Order: sequence, then structure tokens, then C-alpha cells
Amino acid sequence: MSTSSPSQPHAASSLPPVASLLAEVDRGFGRSVERLADFLRIPSVSTDPAYDAETRRCAEWLVAELRGLGFTAEAAKTIGHPMVVAHHPGVGPDAAKRPRILYYGHYDVQPADPVELWTSPPFEPAVVDGPRGKRIVARGAVDDKGQVMGIVEALRAWHAVAGGPPCPVTLMIEGEEESGSKSLEPFMHEAKSRLAADVCVVSDTGMWDVTTPAITTRLRGLVYMEVTVHGPTRDLHSGMYGGAVPNPINVLAKILAELHDAERRVTIPGFYDGVGELPAATKSQWDSLGFDEGEFLGDIGLKSGFGERGHSTLERTWSRPTCDVNGIFGGYTGKGAKTVIAAHATAKVSFRLVSRQDPARIAAAFEAFVRARLPEGCRAEFESHGGNPAIEVSENSRYLGAAERGLRTVFGKAPLLIGTGGSIPAVGSIGRILGMDSLLVGFGLDDDCVHSPNEKFELACYQNAIRSHAAMLAEFAGLPR
Amino acid sequence: MSTSSPSQPHAASSLPPVASLLAEVDRGFGRSVERLADFLRIPSVSTDPAYDAETRRCAEWLVAELRGLGFTAEAAKTIGHPMVVAHHPGVGPDAAKRPRILYYGHYDVQPADPVELWTSPPFEPAVVDGPRGKRIVARGAVDDKGQVMGIVEALRAWHAVAGGPPCPVTLMIEGEEESGSKSLEPFMHEAKSRLAADVCVVSDTGMWDVTTPAITTRLRGLVYMEVTVHGPTRDLHSGMYGGAVPNPINVLAKILAELHDAERRVTIPGFYDGVGELPAATKSQWDSLGFDEGEFLGDIGLKSGFGERGHSTLERTWSRPTCDVNGIFGGYTGKGAKTVIAAHATAKVSFRLVSRQDPARIAAAFEAFVRARLPEGCRAEFESHGGNPAIEVSENSRYLGAAERGLRTVFGKAPLLIGTGGSIPAVGSIGRILGMDSLLVGFGLDDDCVHSPNEKFELACYQNAIRSHAAMLAEFAGLPR
Repeated sequence: MSTSSPSQPHAASSLPPVASLLAEVDRGFGRSVERLADFLRIPSVSTDPAYDAETRRCAEWLVAELRGLGFTAEAAKTIGHPMVVAHHPGVGPDAAKRPRILYYGHYDVQPADPVELWTSPPFEPAVVDGPRGKRIVARGAVDDKGQVMGIVEALRAWHAVAGGPPCPVTLMIEGEEESGSKSLEPFMHEAKSRLAADVCVVSDTGMWDVTTPAITTRLRGLVYMEVTVHGPTRDLHSGMYGGAVPNPINVLAKILAELHDAERRVTIPGFYDGVGELPAATKSQWDSLGFDEGEFLGDIGLKSGFGERGHSTLERTWSRPTCDVNGIFGGYTGKGAKTVIAAHATAKVSFRLVSRQDPARIAAAFEAFVRARLPEGCRAEFESHGGNPAIEVSENSRYLGAAERGLRTVFGKAPLLIGTGGSIPAVGSIGRILGMDSLLVGFGLDDDCVHSPNEKFELACYQNAIRSHAAMLAEFAGLPR
Repeated sequence: MSTSSPSQPHAASSLPPVASLLAEVDRGFGRSVERLADFLRIPSVSTDPAYDAETRRCAEWLVAELRGLGFTAEAAKTIGHPMVVAHHPGVGPDAAKRPRILYYGHYDVQPADPVELWTSPPFEPAVVDGPRGKRIVARGAVDDKGQVMGIVEALRAWHAVAGGPPCPVTLMIEGEEESGSKSLEPFMHEAKSRLAADVCVVSDTGMWDVTTPAITTRLRGLVYMEVTVHGPTRDLHSGMYGGAVPNPINVLAKILAELHDAERRVTIPGFYDGVGELPAATKSQWDSLGFDEGEFLGDIGLKSGFGERGHSTLERTWSRPTCDVNGIFGGYTGKGAKTVIAAHATAKVSFRLVSRQDPARIAAAFEAFVRARLPEGCRAEFESHGGNPAIEVSENSRYLGAAERGLRTVFGKAPLLIGTGGSIPAVGSIGRILGMDSLLVGFGLDDDCVHSPNEKFELACYQNAIRSHAAMLAEFAGLPR
């Protein structure tokens, strides 16, 4: 691995050599693992009120760690679980002139069910051998306690080497990411000035593989709607009425079918407004990733992909919008036969969004699309289950460039710029409320069993996470504000 | 009311005047009501084993009544509830030359739930005043005990006036019509020779209105299929996979949508094979019925019908085949949102059949239709929930002509020839196994609350049922065999 120092000479004078930071990380890594294990031992299951006291204790544990690194920190009161907020002004006379960094993560975890499928108790972290070396197994190992500790331990190295971070650093570590983040936006509105920064670093995503870092530059957005088509005022006998009245299930099926054309494009008028073409450079970079489509699809029993014509599987999941029915129900759903025409039928329909697609406009266009297709005698009711726009991080941003340099220092190769088909609503909220871009640099692997039994974090990934955050912070600090 | 005698002079010589039969019916009607009440007091709920002893007692009660009218009768053992079978060779030397009549009905009843909605106990028959005169209220009043007693009491009048029926008469009154008729076909196969006849008279349908008799000449058939579309081998996260894999709910919705074209015709190849055009005479007769479409649709909250273009509501329900989805389910069907792509989705799809549509061919064609539309990566599983062909009674049959004359004698006007959108599987079984046509002459009214609380039979309808069966039997006997 290369250990070259930050490449922005104008500010480098007052920064410690990155090599000394990385050496400090490596020297203290044994203790970093112990601290992560302490963090993981606290069952901060945010969705279950039975764990509320533990969830609070977890926040307080983190506050204490950060205070030990010279941060002013508190477990701030919210309408839900506490928000850990910590601030350090940076050390030295130049700190105030340097970019302000906000780190976002979460200290809460998913429930551990089904507990019987764990090979060791989910809240008794176990360091075990695996094909890639040692790993730590526990609920929250990578999602997101391990990734949060990647940041905390990098700050610890800076504390040891330089007395603190080289620039103003704020942390916002929430306790409700796994249970709907209901406090996040209200808190950001309220604490906006305390959270002021130039860029937000989010560590809740993955690497390309164990030796290849990645920066996630695309997150799809989401619109999730529920539609109920109502027809006759009551359930009818299909013999007496069949063929003479609108059947809400048939009507709903027809409308859902019309959502896609023969090219598998979504037919809602205006749906593609704001959808950008994939830049040629990005496309060729993705083509060079060596994505194993056969493995991706074979794992779920498919031989070939199925989606919008003219796009690869990677493009379809990272850069193209979708429409999927996530649930449908109506009429008789028990065993055997009942000759009924149902009074109503319901579908849960979601859209993954990309680029500048507007969730509110798409929700409205979907409603109009459905209403325009209702035969006389039918009406539709809609319920929104929320929406958030897609995130696209500019691949030319100087913060992304700095992160790339930091990662290259640690891994000896450039990070890949990747997308993800899923959504991280917090990133949208941070942009909208706090007015800053996020930089998504994470250290998970596909097989980390996130949300599943035997969640783990490779210790190699954990160590590189700490090293990377230490190196990236040096690069950020080297940028002009 | 007219009381003219049968119009077939060649056999009339040995038949009593119909007027004397009708007079006998009227004279004994008070006792006919008492006997119906006795019949109704026996709670023969076939679907509930708690009533098995009562169901048997009910069969035996009926056997005793028929023996009292000179019939050889028994409650024959079956794999389920007893089958009441009774036979009379007919009186007089000419009887054996006359047409043999088989009567079909059922002595079992639906459960009385919800009992609290009844105005009098369901198995304590109450004769009460209504807008059309007196009515008898009890479970089974019209479905089908009242209709069965219409036949029995007509045979009683023949017994009183002529010593017995004028021709060979067999009754097959089952005890499982409300619980799936599982013994009916096996019994018919086994007892085929005992059930031999020239025509079957079924009394389990309705009149047009209280003063207008009807013969039901069309019953739709049914094919009921369940289809499950399987896609990925497990439920998937719609963010990670959405847009790149086939979604079984979307696939199923698309296939269901393609079952109808813009004219609302069913698109399955060969579906309309065997569908006859409505004879002009039938169409003009139906047009003259004065069917109140506004009331039919308004009752279920609709302003206009919805179905195959170019057909009236009556035609759509009586003479046109259909395709309705009776149930659908897949994916997440709970409250709120879950971003899942389901591994499979299921629909229950039924077809009402008319004319000579073949249930087996339509089931196979439906399967082929679905399979032809599955994208790669999806497969379909099918489960049949049964099928039976449509019934169309020739409107030129001499038995129908005889029944028309009998009904005209009683009501002073010709019966209407009507259809029903529903199915009576027994009628198909009788045709298929016993090789004879059925004649559906019933005396129920739309507001009789069949299968509902406060089921009733208008005494006027009951009396006309007895008179009609007495008169029709005279007409049948007047036909050459």
C-alpha cells in the first residue's frame, strides 16, 4: 500500500504525515476491536420499546467515547431515541479556515430475530476466523456500529497524533435509522446551525470487494403508493353478476399491466422527466467493473435479467427508474374456490427514482394515470407511504476527489464509483435541510448478512475503514474551504 | 285463472280433468302448509356434523310422506347423507306407455347463521303477513323444502283424485346440495337403472315475479382455476433488484389484463368455440321482459353495466361467457410499506360458460394462455377447482311445451323463458350420467332471502307451485312417450 501524503501542498504544511496516522491506527487496532465489541454488546434495538433503556445507554456510551477525544458531545433529546451530536473545532490556527466535515451514521441496530439461526449470541460479539481472515460477528457489526467506529477510531488516531482533527468536525449519529428515522428531520431543522458543514460523510454502504474501495455516487429514490380500486358496493356472486359489472381485481390488473410498455419502460406521462442519460465515462467505468451478472441472477434462480430494454443489469439497478408492485390483494384469498366478485382490490406500488425525478410529481402522475383508466362505476383511493428523491453525487466534486485520494493512499488503487438500487432517505434530508452534499464511503461487503443472522464485519475491512477515514480527513483538510 | 284441461287429446281420455286436481290442491292447502312446517322444523343442516341425526330424520320424514302416497321409498345409503329415492309406476293400464318423470330437489338446508338476525327462530316456522299476503319464514322455506313440497303435495292431489300419478314417477331428493353434493354422482352411477326417466324436473329456481311463472332454460357453466406465477427463488429487496428481474405480481397482472380485449371479449384462443348466438326469438322475448337494469345495478351502487360490448346486461349474465378474477394475492399485504419483490403471486380465475363451451378445453386453453405469456425466469403452477358445462334446455322441447301449458293453466299467462348467470352442477350431472334433459321450473322470488336470515316462501307461491306441478304432470302424461 502507498502511504503518500496529501497531495494539496498549500495546506499540507500544518498537517501531520498520513503515514503517521495510519501507523497510529495500526498500533491501536487491537483496542479498536475491543471498543467495537463494547459498542456491539449494548443491544440498541430501536424498533422494540423493550430495549429503550439499552438504546439510551448505547448513545451515552458513544458520547463518552467522543468526549474522551476532546469533542463536546451529548445524547440530544428528540421525539424518539437520543441523537448523538458531537463537535470539535479542529486543532491549530488554520482549522477554522478548513472545510467543515459532518459525519452521519447510526448507533441503533435491527432486531436479532431469528435468534436461533445465530452461531453465537447476537449481542456477545465473537471474533472468529473466516476465509478472509478474522471477522467480528454480532448484530450491528457492520450496520452501522462497525462503520461508525471506523470514523470514531480515525478521530482517535488524529487525537493521538495531532491532538484532534485538523478541521471542524461534527458527528450526527442517530438512534432510529432502523425504525423510520422519525426524529431525524425535526432534529436537523432544530439544530441546523450546530450541524453546519461543507460536506457530509456517510459510512453506511459497501466496498466493491475486500480489496477494492468504492464510493457510492448514486442512490435511487422512492415513491411508494397504495391504491384501492372500488367497484360494486358489496361483494357479489360471480354467477349472478359476472360479465355485467366492473370487477375491481380485473380493473386493477389492467391498470397495473399498462404501467409498462413492450420495452418495459414505465408509461406514466412525464415519468422520465429529469432522468439523465448515463454519462459515457460512467457507463464505460461500470462496464469495466467486471460485474458478475450470472452470479447476481443465479443466486436468485434466474438465468437472465428482465427489465428496460437496452440497459444492462447494473444500469437497470443503479441508474434506471422502476415500477414494481410490492403487494396485491383482493377477493377470496383462502383455500379452494369462492365465486365472488370483490367490492375492492388493492395494490402497493413503488417507484425507484433516479436523477432529478420529482417524487411528488410522480405520485400525482400515478394517481392521474390510475384515475384516467377507471371504468364508470369504479373509483380509486390512494394512500402515500412516502417518497424521497434519488441522490447523485457529482463525480467531479472536490470532496469526492479528496476521498478518492485518501482511499488510494490506503488501498493502493483508486476506488470504484458505484451505484446502489436502494435508498438512504437521510442523504436526501441532509441535502434538503442542511444544504450540503453527502459523500458515501462505506466498508461493508455483500456477504456481511446485514439485517440477517450472523451479521459480521471483516476485521480487514474495519481496519481499512479506520485508516481510510483518517486519510480522507487529511485530504479534506487539505482543501481550501 | 284458466283451468282448461290438457291439450293433448290422444291421452286425455284416461286423465282426470286438471280442474279437479287444482280444486283438490286448494282444498288441502291448509294441510300442505302444516306439512311444510313439519318438514321445516327438522334442522337438516348438511354441512354441520352436529345436525347429522336431524338430517337423517328429515330424510326419513320425507320417505314416510312418499310411502303414504303409494310410493316405494327409501333413505338410500350413500357415502354422505341419505338420498331419498321414491318410485311410483303410475296408475292405470296406460301409465307404462307414458313419459317417465324424474323429480330432483334437496331436503338439506344452509346453516341458519347469523341466528341473531332472524325475526323468529329459523327452525320454528312462522306464518306471517307480508305485502303479498302470508308467507312462511324458516330456514329452507323456499330452498329447497318448500319447492320439494310443491312436488310432494301435487303428487298428493293426484293420489287423492286418481289414486296416484298418471305416469311413472321417480323422485331423487338429495341431502347434500348445500354441502357439495359429493354423493350425488356416485349415487347416480350406481342407481342409474332405478332413476331411468324421460325428463328430469328440477324445482330450485325462481319465478319472474309473484304473478309470472318462469322456466329457466339457461344455466351458465363454470371453470375455476388457480394460477401461481413463480419468479425469483426468494423474496427480494426491491431496491437491490427492482428493474432487473421479473416481478411475479407485475407479470401476473399483465397476463390477467390480456384476458380481455378492448371490446371486453375474452382473448383466450378458442374460448368462444361452441358459444351459440342468441336466437332472435329468445332475444326479442328477453327484450320484452321489462328487466329493470337500473334497479339491478343501482342496488349495488352502479349507474351502468360494464361488460362485453354489444350485449345487454341480461344477455351478459344469461347468455355470454365471462372471465372474472375472484381473488388475487402476492407480496406484502399488511399495513404500510415493504419494499419487496415477491417470489410468487396467485390469482383465482373463473370462467362462466354458455352453450357448448367445453370446461376441460377452456381450462387447458387458459393454462396455455398463461404459459405463453411468461417471461423467461417465471413459471406457473395451476390448480383446478372444478368445472361444469353450461346447460341450455331446448326451447322447442315437447316437455318444455307441456310445462308451459301447465303453467299457463295455473297462472293464466305463459311462463317466461329466462336464464340465470349461476350454475346448478346437478343438472349437468343428470344430463351426463342419466342421459336426460332437465326442466327447471321453480317458484322462488328474488327477495326470498335464500342463504340469508329470514328466508321465506310466499304462501301464494307455494300454492301455485303445488297447482303447477299437478297441472304440469297432467301435461307430461298427455305426451306420447
